[in-house]
Amino acid sequence: MTEATLYGYFRSSASYRVRIALNLKGIDYRQIPVHLLRGGGEQLGEAYRQIQPDGVVPAFVDGDGPPLAQSLAIVEYLDECFPQPPLLPSAPADRAYVRAVALQIACEIHPLNNLRVLSYLKATLGVSDAQKSAWYAHWIGLGFASLERRLAAEPRVGRCVFGDTPGLADLCLVPQVWNAKRFAVPLDAYPTLMRLYGHAAALPAFARAEPSLQPDAEPPPA
Amino acid sequence: MTEATLYGYFRSSASYRVRIALNLKGIDYRQIPVHLLRGGGEQLGEAYRQIQPDGVVPAFVDGDGPPLAQSLAIVEYLDECFPQPPLLPSAPADRAYVRAVALQIACEIHPLNNLRVLSYLKATLGVSDAQKSAWYAHWIGLGFASLERRLAAEPRVGRCVFGDTPGLADLCLVPQVWNAKRFAVPLDAYPTLMRLYGHAAALPAFARAEPSLQPDAEPPPA
Repeated sequence: MTEATLYGYFRSSASYRVRIALNLKGIDYRQIPVHLLRGGGEQLGEAYRQIQPDGVVPAFVDGDGPPLAQSLAIVEYLDECFPQPPLLPSAPADRAYVRAVALQIACEIHPLNNLRVLSYLKATLGVSDAQKSAWYAHWIGLGFASLERRLAAEPRVGRCVFGDTPGLADLCLVPQVWNAKRFAVPLDAYPTLMRLYGHAAALPAFARAEPSLQPDAEPPPA
Repeated sequence: MTEATLYGYFRSSASYRVRIALNLKGIDYRQIPVHLLRGGGEQLGEAYRQIQPDGVVPAFVDGDGPPLAQSLAIVEYLDECFPQPPLLPSAPADRAYVRAVALQIACEIHPLNNLRVLSYLKATLGVSDAQKSAWYAHWIGLGFASLERRLAAEPRVGRCVFGDTPGLADLCLVPQVWNAKRFAVPLDAYPTLMRLYGHAAALPAFARAEPSLQPDAEPPPA
């Protein structure tokens, strides 16, 4: 890979997923920050839209290749181009299990709680801060309760979602739990998820991808 | 495949995607309907949760295998087990492009507009019917405008999202457009999407998957 570039935002869960994947694969990359709040959102400006017409982060550029969108598509791309270490198991049914856990987070939890949705609730529907927090906690609670139920009974769970090897599902789980902690959502009801989070988040590839360590990180509001 | 079973609901976009994939692959399957409205939602009942702990449709069971969840994970599974005809291109960058279009629909549009979200808006936040419709149209409009912008300028688009072969992205696009039409969202601003929809929806594998033709279909309300 001649040069790998990740356009992202330190607190974006989807950017965080891709950072973990790049670290797990041992790929050097440069980060170009796209600030989601400054100037009405740099991701909506013409400069970024030339790279990523959707106006969402992250975007990933591999050398001269076209910009790639959508974190899970980027991670699958990395796994196909750089097979070691694999981020998915080898058997189709096991791959489907790992992808389903990743998609449950990426499709059932994360989209409901991202910045633009919370902004719409506030600005257009006029909900209160308490209602916005309850909305956030509702979708985390529903999604995490389902995941806990599934993973607590799943024989393929080890120290990671599939055995002891961190992969596609773990790199979705860790940013989602990080996000829930940021919003102070109670997490005691999800011991399996918290065990998996604790193990993975401490691995170097995950730890280095943590939002507060990124070049565009800002201190939390006082 | 000894016996393939799809648990789904005729109007569920995610179930519709899997029906198209099964038809494209020429796989015989039986459908077991899970009614999302009856009795507070059959998908939340204990019987269905034994199969699919998340309480979301669809679930897919391949012979003696464990139930598989999440439509995109199921479609990737089918593509891995039954490679012909392929639902993804062969080059990693092209696969990433097709997956990104699919994920843009599955992660950025569909999750905001499914039944449980609309129910929460109404029942918990107390929004009016007009606000609920505006919410629905807002996320369709934002997502479709991005997709239109991306695909109108994309040289890989042919009669389908990638060339002339229907695949993973088309089988996400058609149910999402079908859904938008059902909610009477104006679609004139998306000529590329409508052309792709028109072509794919008329293909036999797509036409046979259309909600009104499923065994659990109900007539639209008068």
